Formats: sequence, structure tokens, C-alpha cells
Amino acid sequence: MKKKHKKKIIEAKKNLKNLGKKLVDDIKGRRNPSLIVPIRALSNVVFDPKTRLITLGNRASKRYFFNVAHVRKFVQTVEVAATAKELLDVNKHLSLREVFYRIKRTIPHTNINIVDEQKESNKAIEDLELITDCSREQLHVNANKMGSVAGNVVIKDKGDTVNWSKLGSGGWSIPSNVEEIEFKKVDADFIIYMEKAAEWERLHEDKVWKKLNCLIMSSQGQATRGVRRMLQRLHIEHKLPVYVLVDLDPWGIYIYSVLRFGSISLAHISERLAIPDARFLGLTPYDIEEFDLKRHLIKFKDVDIKRLNDLTKYEWFKNKKEWQEFFKKMKELKGKVELAALSSKGISFISDTYIPEKIKKKEWLK
Amino acid sequence: MKKKHKKKIIEAKKNLKNLGKKLVDDIKGRRNPSLIVPIRALSNVVFDPKTRLITLGNRASKRYFFNVAHVRKFVQTVEVAATAKELLDVNKHLSLREVFYRIKRTIPHTNINIVDEQKESNKAIEDLELITDCSREQLHVNANKMGSVAGNVVIKDKGDTVNWSKLGSGGWSIPSNVEEIEFKKVDADFIIYMEKAAEWERLHEDKVWKKLNCLIMSSQGQATRGVRRMLQRLHIEHKLPVYVLVDLDPWGIYIYSVLRFGSISLAHISERLAIPDARFLGLTPYDIEEFDLKRHLIKFKDVDIKRLNDLTKYEWFKNKKEWQEFFKKMKELKGKVELAALSSKGISFISDTYIPEKIKKKEWLK
Repeated sequence: MKKKHKKKIIEAKKNLKNLGKKLVDDIKGRRNPSLIVPIRALSNVVFDPKTRLITLGNRASKRYFFNVAHVRKFVQTVEVAATAKELLDVNKHLSLREVFYRIKRTIPHTNINIVDEQKESNKAIEDLELITDCSREQLHVNANKMGSVAGNVVIKDKGDTVNWSKLGSGGWSIPSNVEEIEFKKVDADFIIYMEKAAEWERLHEDKVWKKLNCLIMSSQGQATRGVRRMLQRLHIEHKLPVYVLVDLDPWGIYIYSVLRFGSISLAHISERLAIPDARFLGLTPYDIEEFDLKRHLIKFKDVDIKRLNDLTKYEWFKNKKEWQEFFKKMKELKGKVELAALSSKGISFISDTYIPEKIKKKEWLK
Repeated sequence: MKKKHKKKIIEAKKNLKNLGKKLVDDIKGRRNPSLIVPIRALSNVVFDPKTRLITLGNRASKRYFFNVAHVRKFVQTVEVAATAKELLDVNKHLSLREVFYRIKRTIPHTNINIVDEQKESNKAIEDLELITDCSREQLHVNANKMGSVAGNVVIKDKGDTVNWSKLGSGGWSIPSNVEEIEFKKVDADFIIYMEKAAEWERLHEDKVWKKLNCLIMSSQGQATRGVRRMLQRLHIEHKLPVYVLVDLDPWGIYIYSVLRFGSISLAHISERLAIPDARFLGLTPYDIEEFDLKRHLIKFKDVDIKRLNDLTKYEWFKNKKEWQEFFKKMKELKGKVELAALSSKGISFISDTYIPEKIKKKEWLK
């Protein structure tokens, strides 16, 4: 991986240089400097049934410097490219917010700022990911940091050897950027990813990762890019199946959907983040009956029902009988149930019974 | 600490048993079973200038079982006491949410639930903290898990020896409950606590903890109880000064205020969480001038101005000339500035210049 990562850095630098060279050539050749940028609008987002990923279609647009409608975005893209180049040269990283401040300044003799809002620099970075075919992380721009992991894995990271099985009650804090991590030893049969840090502490205290020889990983709410990449890398490089544990509500299902198929807003990067074989472990509407959890139903609000209807129509769920049945049952329940409700069956019911039996009986959805 | 922690467990169990015994005695003596509960309403919250803590006053109320106005809260308090006893007996922990589900059930032959909302069990747990004089953590009920730490510290936790200086780019993930952690070696001169995980990654990548021989710690937004206890324990047990680094906005100042003096809603537990000597490192209105950050001002919204006015009137800031001057300057700026804006001065400006110079020149507020 170390070599692989160095290759990635070299690739990123090369692609950034090529971009610069192309623009200089345009100028020298007295052409209007231009960039070809794949279109990231909804109209160019497709679900590819073969890869089972939400990806971008083939449409692209040309962005010119000498064009009043293009110049702002053109300059922003070149600015973030210069910042990425600077970061790679000094081998440092910046957060999205920091990049925004780094490039924000007033163009001399005008009252025009290169960027006024972070939204603009974010979009420029996303465009740059496409133009250079390098992920934001490869370009040394980090997203959010959140989440913990524990299990029988030894990694090497920034010169330190870290054993995820020997980190007390806290576990390893997952960085925003996991590209440089080398997996030295991976002794686990699968990964359980859960939506909430409180569930992670439950499973960790109950030593689930030890008993089931697995890894446990969580962030809070929607999984960060760092967490998604970590899951994907372990899944691809070490063939670990990924099980997802979320609340039975449309938001929980959406978290699973994004982990598995990618998202519309990050469609251009699905390949580097999504796990089309991720398994849905729970909660399911069938659990509610089996474990008598109906009394813990929290009534849907209108916004939940709308979200559920959206899910039902997603292309990647539309033709799946199992999922349509699942959604139908959810609608009949008229409410959501949280994972934490399993504690009504016993402090460690989720760890000692729910998870091991589900996995043993292969009771997961896909 | 190990012994100290065992003593705490024994103390918690004893206090819970005494509570139960008292109620049984009431019943045997044919008295109306009752609990004495200190009043946690705003009317009984005071700022103690001697301890410099927001604490509860002396007023308490008596809660009776045979009293239609009291019985619901009475039963809820006894229920969470029973759950805490169960947790201590099996040496496990539950989150607040899990405790809610654990005690939620319908009283036989009625349609009355012991609790309908988590708010009720939360309040019962807070009351129990006061009745037993044990913190929620001592009673094995955990709050949120969030945050990371790095630096020259070796701890022992759950049988593992964890070296905070050898954990790669991620750092140690701070658990929700830090009561059982033993500090084996603490080689640091102070702690820098920051509001945002992105700043933590900045400082970590720049090796600030190594260069300045300190610890760096963050959560995200308002500090969790786990983070606050960790800071307090290191501050008290190892005499480490705590520096706080937040955005220059009323919410950042409020985070500092809570870390230092405690909060109104958790006034009953300030002694176990607050750090009256915590130092405010930045951002300050003076930084905005000195480092020419005015162009990064984000205009206050009405809600920010209201919050700022509230801060100004807080008893613990009211008579402090330095803070009143600080707030006045903030009002003049009419906007907030984020820590991330320092990256406009250089990728590692915050790490290489801002923090070390501030600490060297003792430029902090108290």
C-alpha cells in the first residue's frame, strides 16, 4: 500500500501539472483557455445496473476563461488546483473549510472575491476530482473526521503501528483521510458498521468483535467519506463482507443506500466510496414482530413518509421484490423503531442474541 | 486510580442500596414512601464566586409515592435506580437512550407507561445523580461518545495499555465514560482543547503536541461529558493548564463558558465537569485586527446578537473588565470569524505561529 499510495501522489501531481500545462498551451497558442468538466447535474446521474453504482453519465461541458458566464467557475477550479498542488508539494492536508479560506481573496483593483461561499470552493473541488480523475483525498483535501473502530487489525499509519484490538474502551479514532493507511494484519471475518456511536460502545463493551471475530465501526448519522473509504478498502483489499446496522426508519435505510450504491451528490466518486455488496442486517420490520418491539414504535412524521416513498421509487430498490416488501411493511407499521429499543429485551441482547443469530441464519437483505 | 474507581463503584452501590432500604423502611413503618430531591429549576441555580462554579442552591423538595402529583416522577426515579443497580451488578453500561427503552413498559392492567419520552428518564437520572451523590457515569449510564486525543500520555483502560503518541493520524477515540481510565504516564505541559475535529487534524498533522509538548483534544461543537471529564481529570490529577480554542462567535464563547464554569442544565454536576481555571486562547477580537482577518467576517444574525447579549450579562462575565471589553469589541465587529480563517495566512499558520506565540506571550483570557 505504501508504494501504491506514493504512486497515487505522483499520479495526482502529474494530472495537476498536465492541467496547468494544457492551460498554458492554450494561452501560448492564443486559444481561449478551457477545461472539460463532466456535468454533475441530476440529468447526468445514472444508476448503472452492471456495476450497481450511482454514477455520472457521459455528458461533459467545456468551461472557457473568456466567457462571462464561465470565468468565475473557471478561476475557482484553477485556484483549487493550485492549492491542491501546493498541499501535495508540502505533503500537508486541508479541510474543505480551510481550502475555502485559503483561496478566498479579492481580485486586485476589483471588489470581486474569488469565492464568496464555501459552496463554491466545494463545487470547484468536486469538479477537480473529475478533471484530474483523483479523489479529493488524493488531492489532500479532507472531509469530516468522525467515528471509531475496533477489532483484530494492525495498521501502519504515519510511522505508527496501531493495533485496533488494544485500544481500551475508546477504540481508534478514524481520520478524515484513510488513503495512506497500510493494513499490516487483518484477522477478521466481516465488518459490522453501525449508525450510532452508542451502539458501538454497546458492542465494544460486550466484546462482539472478539466473540464473532469481526470489526466494529461507527460514525454518527450519515457515514463520513473517511469511514466509507475505510469500509470499502477493507471490503475490497481484504474481502471482508460489510454488515450495516441502522434504525428502522427511512433515514437509516438511506444511510445504507448511500453506503451501498453511492449518492446522487457524490455520484462522480461512487467507485471510490460505495460497496455494492453491503448487507443490510437490521433493524427490519420482521424484527419488530419477532422481538415484540411494536410498543416502541415512534409514529412517522409527514417528512418520514415522504422520504419512505422516495426510497421505494429509487431505481436500485424499485425492482427488488425483497425491498419493496420491506418498504410495504414499514408503511404498515406507520412508525420507526430504533436499534436502542433492543435493550428492552436485555442489556446485551443486541450483542449476545440479535447479531450472532442473524449472521448465523444469514438473515440479511441485499 | 484503579482502587479509587473500585471505591466509587462500591460507593454507588451502597448509596443505591441505602435508597432502596430507606423506601422499604418507609413501607414497613407504614409511612408514605418519599425521596428528598434537590430542586434543579433555574430558581435554584446559583453562581458561586468562591468556587467559580454554576451550582445548585440548597433548596430541595420531598417527592411522595402516595401523591398523584408526585407518583410518576417517584416511580421513574426508583426505576432508573433499579437499572443503575443492575448495571453495576453486571458491570455493564447503557446509553441514556438505552436506559429509556430499558425502563419503558406499560404498568400491568393500566394503559400507563412508566416513561413515554426520553426526557423523563433523563430527568430521573439527573435526579438520581443528586439523590445518590454519584455522577451518571458512576451509575454506569453513558452520555455521547465523540472526540479524539493525541500527545505523550500512556493510559491503562480495560486491560489495554494505550499510548496516545503512537496512534497514527486518527488518535485515540475518546469514550463516553472516562471514569475507569488510569493515567500511567503523563508527559505534557498543558492541553489544547478545540471545538472542531478539522482543527484537531490540522494541529495533529503539524505535530503541535510534539513541538509544544502538550496534548490536543477535540470533540465537535459542545464538548461531551466524556471530553469534559477527561480534561478535568488531567487538569486536576496532573495539574495541566487547559487552553480553549474556539471560533470567535457567541457559540464558541459559550462552549468555553460551559467548559469553565459549568452549565445551568447540568449545574448539579459542575464540580465533576467544570474547570474554573480554563484559559481562553482564541480567537479574540484583537486577533482579527492583528492578523488582518476582517475580510473573513461573517455577519451576525439576530440570534447571534441575542446570544452575545446574554453572554454579556452572565454573572460570571458581568464583573470582568477584560471580558466586557471583549464582548464590546465583538459587537463592534458585527460578525463572527472562524478559526479556519487563519489558514488564509498559511496552511500551518495556526500551528507554527498563532498558537506558540500566544502561549509564549501568555496572551490568553481568563
